[in-house]
Amino acid sequence: MLEDKNPKKTALSKLGEFGLIDHLTQNFKINQESSIKGIGDDAAVLNFNNAQTVLTTDLLIENVHFDLSYMPLKHLGYKAVVVNLSDVYAMNAKATQITVSIAVSNRFPLEALEDLYEGIYTACKHYNVDLVGGDTTSSTTGLLISVTALGIAESDKIVYRNGAKPNDLLVLTGDIGGAFMGLQVLEREKEVFKVNPNNQPDLSMYAYIVERQLKPEARKDIIDLLEQLQVKPTSMIDVSDGISSEILHICKQSKVGCELYENKIPLDPQVISTCEEFDIDSTTIAINGGEDYELLMTISQDDYPKIKANPNFTVIGYITEEAKGKHLITRAETAIPLKAQGWNALNDQE
Amino acid sequence: MLEDKNPKKTALSKLGEFGLIDHLTQNFKINQESSIKGIGDDAAVLNFNNAQTVLTTDLLIENVHFDLSYMPLKHLGYKAVVVNLSDVYAMNAKATQITVSIAVSNRFPLEALEDLYEGIYTACKHYNVDLVGGDTTSSTTGLLISVTALGIAESDKIVYRNGAKPNDLLVLTGDIGGAFMGLQVLEREKEVFKVNPNNQPDLSMYAYIVERQLKPEARKDIIDLLEQLQVKPTSMIDVSDGISSEILHICKQSKVGCELYENKIPLDPQVISTCEEFDIDSTTIAINGGEDYELLMTISQDDYPKIKANPNFTVIGYITEEAKGKHLITRAETAIPLKAQGWNALNDQE
Repeated sequence: MLEDKNPKKTALSKLGEFGLIDHLTQNFKINQESSIKGIGDDAAVLNFNNAQTVLTTDLLIENVHFDLSYMPLKHLGYKAVVVNLSDVYAMNAKATQITVSIAVSNRFPLEALEDLYEGIYTACKHYNVDLVGGDTTSSTTGLLISVTALGIAESDKIVYRNGAKPNDLLVLTGDIGGAFMGLQVLEREKEVFKVNPNNQPDLSMYAYIVERQLKPEARKDIIDLLEQLQVKPTSMIDVSDGISSEILHICKQSKVGCELYENKIPLDPQVISTCEEFDIDSTTIAINGGEDYELLMTISQDDYPKIKANPNFTVIGYITEEAKGKHLITRAETAIPLKAQGWNALNDQE
Repeated sequence: MLEDKNPKKTALSKLGEFGLIDHLTQNFKINQESSIKGIGDDAAVLNFNNAQTVLTTDLLIENVHFDLSYMPLKHLGYKAVVVNLSDVYAMNAKATQITVSIAVSNRFPLEALEDLYEGIYTACKHYNVDLVGGDTTSSTTGLLISVTALGIAESDKIVYRNGAKPNDLLVLTGDIGGAFMGLQVLEREKEVFKVNPNNQPDLSMYAYIVERQLKPEARKDIIDLLEQLQVKPTSMIDVSDGISSEILHICKQSKVGCELYENKIPLDPQVISTCEEFDIDSTTIAINGGEDYELLMTISQDDYPKIKANPNFTVIGYITEEAKGKHLITRAETAIPLKAQGWNALNDQE
């Protein structure tokens, strides 16, 4: 019946994920006194009796976000929690509670869900968050996980996406591109397995990047570290899509430009060697790969001395006036416009 | 790969929805100081700087929870919000914020999602809650909506499921069974439509029960009314499954028994006439039907004078000592054990 009522149709893929959210929610206004920040950052910010509460939610869907042929359910449970906590940390907040809802088809026996919840349990323990609710229901196909995470922060500690200023340094934690290359390795092994199910793959030479894909960690340690170092970033976002997409979010919301230096992007040797093996350009992977769950932040130059000796942080560029645009400065010192070619949920599907 | 590792399998349907949640979450402990109440009530209760925050989440899945052949998307958006707010009100709290995540297949054009969000918008406006976040992603099949709702309450106002005491009155708001019978009418019309797509159904004689199914309301008015009347229920739950299931939740958590009087259960005349037309026993529908989103509460007998003149409330039974059991007292004054035969998500599916 749906299909017949309106001859004018717009395909969802035309808008992209972020365009779609913006479009659908443009008329929604914030009315509650307790709503400090609604849609448009890593998490919403709420104020209850002057305690700032951070709220974020994510959906993970089988065969869109994960493939159970190589993703163990324990890891999946762990990762489902981590990707949400990462959004809380990206607000410079401490994660405190989660809810987990799952929809499953009867294809899954109880033991499969026990594995999933063991992963969720391990993540709750590791990150010291409480599971406080959820919903369990049947699905007609496959497995779906919806996690909501809450966190708290003092109001003057919360870091939004919109505070970057010209001359701020663009700083990345850890290294990137690993999760994406890990996925490539797993996808290749899956194809091999289809041809020869008795083949026992040796993934030891890919251990780091496969773990980055299957069991990523959220950078809670960085939030603690920033507190110790007395650094409050001017803006921050977690790297769930590629850094290119994340930098553009910061630039758009902060109304600034940026220069990102190709030769500064931190890559693990395993990412470089696997990119060579797959004959893919490692910079393309680094800026567009996604799922690394590192933190990308901008800090005032005054704070540079506090972070420069710390191996957790790499300065990868700096913020400019908006009119200067957003550029990747290549190794050949050519400035090319930065584009978000990151993972786009709505283009990926059939 | 999943299927081969463990020869010992337990079908999910063996546990039922509530058994499954209990089983999967039994080892999870509450560690955060701010977690007052975790899993096991209509919503979690959190305490941030002495403001009690209520948190609840629900998943709605196409062809499990709704059928788009008769559920207009606007109504679906409205209902998706309402079912979550109902859980907040069931804690005697005020709903303040929601997040909405959707997964959609490309079968849906943008205009369909605009309709869905128009319903969400209308509900936000009607109940004065803010949409503050969400996630939008693709699904391989159909439409899925995950809503999380937050509310606030003073800590001494929150009503749990576990406070019912012997001799308390069992009180229901509004009337029940309508949503279920509305569904029966819609399902019948769908079958007629399949045979004769040109048939224009006249649903005017079923207007009330169809609206109960397609556009239910959450009883925010009751929360305001209880405050005016200065009544704090000893326990409360919303009627999303049948009242039989809800009463048993209260009895289990409060460690009490109950007597429910068949002749006191409030039914709309349209429910009675439609039950006659479908040749179904109206009491069976009333106690097992579900989706009415009324509030079921227990109140101290001392509070009875405050509610007795109010048409919103019906006393349908009373609480007993646990050892006396849980019974339905029929019109023939026979006591039969109360069983939860309500909607069970995990038995319904193929």
